[in-house]
Amino acid sequence: MTVHGGNIYEYEGCLDFSANINPLGMPESVVEAAKRGVEASIHYPDVKADKLIRGIAEKEQTDPQWILCGNGAAELIFSVVRAVQPKQALLLAPTFAEYEQALVSEECKVSYYKLNEQDFQVKEDIINQISHDTDIVFLCNPNNPTGKRTKRELLLKIAEKCKECFCMLIIDECFLEFTEQEEEFTMVPYLVQFPNLFILKAFTKIYAMPGLRLGYGITSNTSLLSRMKSGMQPWNLSVPAQFAGIAALKETEYVKQTKEYIKAEREFLYQGLMKLADQAFYGEANYLFFRSEEGLKEKMIKKNILIRDCSNYEGLSKGYYRVAVRTRKENEAFLKAFSQIRGFE
Amino acid sequence: MTVHGGNIYEYEGCLDFSANINPLGMPESVVEAAKRGVEASIHYPDVKADKLIRGIAEKEQTDPQWILCGNGAAELIFSVVRAVQPKQALLLAPTFAEYEQALVSEECKVSYYKLNEQDFQVKEDIINQISHDTDIVFLCNPNNPTGKRTKRELLLKIAEKCKECFCMLIIDECFLEFTEQEEEFTMVPYLVQFPNLFILKAFTKIYAMPGLRLGYGITSNTSLLSRMKSGMQPWNLSVPAQFAGIAALKETEYVKQTKEYIKAEREFLYQGLMKLADQAFYGEANYLFFRSEEGLKEKMIKKNILIRDCSNYEGLSKGYYRVAVRTRKENEAFLKAFSQIRGFE
Repeated sequence: MTVHGGNIYEYEGCLDFSANINPLGMPESVVEAAKRGVEASIHYPDVKADKLIRGIAEKEQTDPQWILCGNGAAELIFSVVRAVQPKQALLLAPTFAEYEQALVSEECKVSYYKLNEQDFQVKEDIINQISHDTDIVFLCNPNNPTGKRTKRELLLKIAEKCKECFCMLIIDECFLEFTEQEEEFTMVPYLVQFPNLFILKAFTKIYAMPGLRLGYGITSNTSLLSRMKSGMQPWNLSVPAQFAGIAALKETEYVKQTKEYIKAEREFLYQGLMKLADQAFYGEANYLFFRSEEGLKEKMIKKNILIRDCSNYEGLSKGYYRVAVRTRKENEAFLKAFSQIRGFE
Repeated sequence: MTVHGGNIYEYEGCLDFSANINPLGMPESVVEAAKRGVEASIHYPDVKADKLIRGIAEKEQTDPQWILCGNGAAELIFSVVRAVQPKQALLLAPTFAEYEQALVSEECKVSYYKLNEQDFQVKEDIINQISHDTDIVFLCNPNNPTGKRTKRELLLKIAEKCKECFCMLIIDECFLEFTEQEEEFTMVPYLVQFPNLFILKAFTKIYAMPGLRLGYGITSNTSLLSRMKSGMQPWNLSVPAQFAGIAALKETEYVKQTKEYIKAEREFLYQGLMKLADQAFYGEANYLFFRSEEGLKEKMIKKNILIRDCSNYEGLSKGYYRVAVRTRKENEAFLKAFSQIRGFE
């Protein structure tokens, strides 16, 4: 079983609903910048990523010193875990699998806050699972694979409890830019208040550039950043990724259009899933989570559609799936295939 | 002081003799492949890097299972150190600074085999410094910054001693492809005999693609590779890097031409250095090492030429420098500037 979505290499020619990438594709300006980056790759990358970091700092309205870029957000997940050296971690179940892989590789024990299968919503009782024994908490917001967001009011309580317990709180906002009223959910304004807070963001999803590898982390905890840097090579960001990132930061209109597009298509896809799935969960990200018959992934592959089977996520029984919100034409193709499999036509 | 060469971002407009990159540039086929890779970057990279690894295995005549690719060889230096978890390391002094950074980040003690300032050659007495307390030895062949190679006869003795002492031997062959009779120096044929041997190689230098980030390690020690993989993100290789690597492997004629070009230009540059430097060391790689007046780097920058000041290398006093072998026109420009600084014209 594949642990991750997006494996188009194994299933060539399939429409890919398994990776949660902006369906509008990579902005033309980003493609062009990355190609200029290829030509400029006869030189080593800028180890300081100076231009890129200044651009991110401006976007996030934070100190450039608080930003660390990674070869995708995934590199930073491993790096932050190594720097924190946690003995005990708390994860949502289900959630993105990479947190656990990074924790296990550092021999950290993992316990789970098991999300209720009714609504998969993080609730206030999570706070009871955070103690002085907890060294690190990972919260994905919106959560992957469920698409559910946690409100800031609760996030602040969690951050406060973590602070009391000398526990790092890693909030993964990689999909937050696809959601509405993002500014009411992001924890970026609270970085000063919580030096135990580390926020993960990525260019990967919103600018549809997963193959270029570019993510970043923000924290006011500069000694944590120093520890992270000391265990990483200085040239971790390729020149094409740096050039692409600098161009992407200018694409504010594109992000706005994406949000609107996703909102409409998510609604369309959700309505379809409501009719066809055993259970469809309303989500706020650029993907939707549902329950259906076992073996759906294999049946979909026969129809040249790749979806994400979530049964290997911790805390999920069989029959849970995740699909990306794609273009109208692709979403229709998926719903048609699903409808045929379910015997509706 | 900068720790690495190649910082063209700080010294814009300078001719770069500080990074040891193929002066013939990136092969056109590699540029084109990387650009196609940019277009294909709307998908995640192949986590198995299947095509690339099969290509490398064919070139190296090894089992594909023995190969691990990295986001540049630098990522693998950090990764192998984390996987080995050494307590005591032996390094050449001087040598490439990144080994020590990786070792120190894992709190490993470092001792040095101090190269004799007469010829900077690794000699048989290095074996006396390897004991049951030594967990890892890094050997750069040809060594950076000296350009001196260590003969296979001695390498085999070192590998044997390391094996007896349960010590990993990391041989960095990143610059070996620029040298003549490479096949008599590479330790690749001895991977089966020495499961304690890990060989580092890079696409960076020979194909002039440092900005794309692609290197690889080879070892018959597959349990070491598993440990390395478990602490690394699965998407560490960008799509442009994978595409570029696959194209580069076909450029055998280009590598041959490069070797001939470097041989002639190294000789030309060496003759010039013999006249102008206080001491010029004959080297076998695509860079040359010499001793001259203090402050030469700054004087060269005023003439828009960037060279590598080596005084921050462990084991070197002030006044040592390294220059890359570049094109004839560039080498002439460097020698002319050097000649002016030295008051010869």
